Amino acid sequence: MIHLVQNKKINMLNFEFKNPTKILFGKGQIERIAKEIPQGAKVLMLYGGGSIKQNGIYEQVKNALGGFEVIEFGGIPANPEYEILLQALNIIKEERITYMLAVGGGSVIDGTKFLSSAALFSGDTPWDILTQKIVTTKGLPFGTVLTLPATGSEMNSGAVITRAETQEKYSMGGPGLFPQFSVLDPQVVKSVPKRQLANGITDSFSHVLEQYMTYPIQALLQDRFAESIMQTLIEVGPKVINNPADYDAAADFMWCCTMALNGLIQKGVPTDWAVHAMGHELTALFGIDHARTLAIIHPSHYRYNFASKKEKLAQYGQRVWGITEGTLEEIAEAAIVKTEEFFHSMDIKTKLSEYTADYAGTAEKIEARFTERGWNGIGEHKTLAPSDVKEIVSMSY
Amino acid sequence: MIHLVQNKKINMLNFEFKNPTKILFGKGQIERIAKEIPQGAKVLMLYGGGSIKQNGIYEQVKNALGGFEVIEFGGIPANPEYEILLQALNIIKEERITYMLAVGGGSVIDGTKFLSSAALFSGDTPWDILTQKIVTTKGLPFGTVLTLPATGSEMNSGAVITRAETQEKYSMGGPGLFPQFSVLDPQVVKSVPKRQLANGITDSFSHVLEQYMTYPIQALLQDRFAESIMQTLIEVGPKVINNPADYDAAADFMWCCTMALNGLIQKGVPTDWAVHAMGHELTALFGIDHARTLAIIHPSHYRYNFASKKEKLAQYGQRVWGITEGTLEEIAEAAIVKTEEFFHSMDIKTKLSEYTADYAGTAEKIEARFTERGWNGIGEHKTLAPSDVKEIVSMSY
Repeated sequence: MIHLVQNKKINMLNFEFKNPTKILFGKGQIERIAKEIPQGAKVLMLYGGGSIKQNGIYEQVKNALGGFEVIEFGGIPANPEYEILLQALNIIKEERITYMLAVGGGSVIDGTKFLSSAALFSGDTPWDILTQKIVTTKGLPFGTVLTLPATGSEMNSGAVITRAETQEKYSMGGPGLFPQFSVLDPQVVKSVPKRQLANGITDSFSHVLEQYMTYPIQALLQDRFAESIMQTLIEVGPKVINNPADYDAAADFMWCCTMALNGLIQKGVPTDWAVHAMGHELTALFGIDHARTLAIIHPSHYRYNFASKKEKLAQYGQRVWGITEGTLEEIAEAAIVKTEEFFHSMDIKTKLSEYTADYAGTAEKIEARFTERGWNGIGEHKTLAPSDVKEIVSMSY
Repeated sequence: MIHLVQNKKINMLNFEFKNPTKILFGKGQIERIAKEIPQGAKVLMLYGGGSIKQNGIYEQVKNALGGFEVIEFGGIPANPEYEILLQALNIIKEERITYMLAVGGGSVIDGTKFLSSAALFSGDTPWDILTQKIVTTKGLPFGTVLTLPATGSEMNSGAVITRAETQEKYSMGGPGLFPQFSVLDPQVVKSVPKRQLANGITDSFSHVLEQYMTYPIQALLQDRFAESIMQTLIEVGPKVINNPADYDAAADFMWCCTMALNGLIQKGVPTDWAVHAMGHELTALFGIDHARTLAIIHPSHYRYNFASKKEKLAQYGQRVWGITEGTLEEIAEAAIVKTEEFFHSMDIKTKLSEYTADYAGTAEKIEARFTERGWNGIGEHKTLAPSDVKEIVSMSY
């Protein structure tokens, strides 16, 4: 094993960390939600396309909410759309809703976060929350019942909202948008389609990469925690996909997804998030599943930025993939290949052309959008210009 | 490397996790405390033997508290004593204190937690908090400025209080006793005496062992997080002791201590804590530093319970110490030896007779105390009787 050249002259960054979400993890936890919601609350229960009515979760939640007045709002789509959320916002105001319960995956929870902010927003239009980068310090309280492990939204204060008419995604958040509680019952995994499970594993793995694959810094514990999550996803991912009823694998998978994006591993270290910035565009332009857009961009992003990321890529190769032979550069490149193979093993394709025949001009289109928004420096060094983005996306065809 | 026999038939345990403490980590964070304390608060500032007056922390805190009415209470000793804390409780009541700021290590913070509970306690005497196992759901609010990384008390809701006259230690806690905020500035490490640093590393390492060294269970991420903390303490511990002014090592050490006992790694897994139960008696009887009592008990505890702990000991040996040769039993025993050597490398002795010549009869004395208290089953299986405790302590002479 080579001794990695690690430039550790950079101190751990100062940080602030607070995460007040209460996690209720395990079998049969849904029935406990009644104790977490204030007595007398008027509850808006939000969900997605109705899969919870097939897998029994709807009944479990309705039974648990027996003591409350509950109004339902179903039909929140993947990539939660602003226009649809406005319908729910009307209900919140007309019905004087005092508490929300999101029952779903990241899209339903993200949509609920937007509503949490919008319900108490005093500006002209809730659209401002997205375009003015409003930081929400107080929202309408809500809890979640997670039905699809992936995004980590159940234990963080961020959300991504889509506006269909402009094909754009907007990030929002703030310390007022943590769920008050989240129920994580790994038994939900058994009714998730394999495609969604592959997405969830890829999404959470990508979240870790965005917070880890930068450059060496003195934050040994954060590095090891990030590596721990990736090692565990690699270990349990195939088991989850082959047998979603395997409770053991489902529990590890579910906890990994939450820990991947609850803020902990990003504290004190630089983060990248350029892959997400580019991936969001591919979802907006082609409707490709979020996780799959990340799998498309990751390899090209790392190869394009190889010079500045190779030390960390090599550390990842050694510690996560157990690659011991070769120069630092060889280990770093082998680590990228291993990552691609991992995605492929879950039937996640890593080239844009495998998703659409219509890819010509995509790089230029995304370059133009970034230019228009003034996104002149993304990535951990804030140095990637729209022209770099064009190159990375081109490499991803 | 042998393939470890891991009985993973046991599912991850259900768990509840909530930790609302806000961490302010890094250089120069002390000056931010004024924004965390409610305007107009009347503050009791608590500290220990006065070392903060030599190292500049006292001035930094006083400057930061410039806008508040502040009363001081110094002199909280290591192993915070009930009788001394009662003096502070009188001040809280007489002066109508509304907020507390603990400036110190685990003893000062633990003492402040007792006061937080006692200030709002409606029972006959605050002594009941300790003897009746009162779970505190609401306490007088407080923050902390950590001056000695070790116990993790800065981000959890537990405390250990000593009653000098009976030579006994009592655990207490509850969800109302999390600090509202804690300042972790690694620069404080440079003025901590080497002996205390060795104690801090040993204490936090022991905390991880108590939550990890049990039996195999399906909780892959929790295991890896625990191993990550131990690996990092092994890596930075010697650097911290050799050069406490090394900010990089100090920052990693400080964050490890907090993560070792903020509740995260114990979620979903069995925990032991028998080493602490026995160690506390050695502190009460002989005044041996808390961390050192743990180093005395750990090796005997693992050898006495070898049959039930050998799988996990071997996993620890392989992953944390990199021991690859030998049978499962040989790796497990080698891991215990490595642990002893790690303690020795910090000048932490691991035999009771190295601390006192007066050890004869200690095992019987502790056995009698446990019997008197009705502690008939400790450890992760709740099967260790006072007679087992006698054997373990005897093996530690």
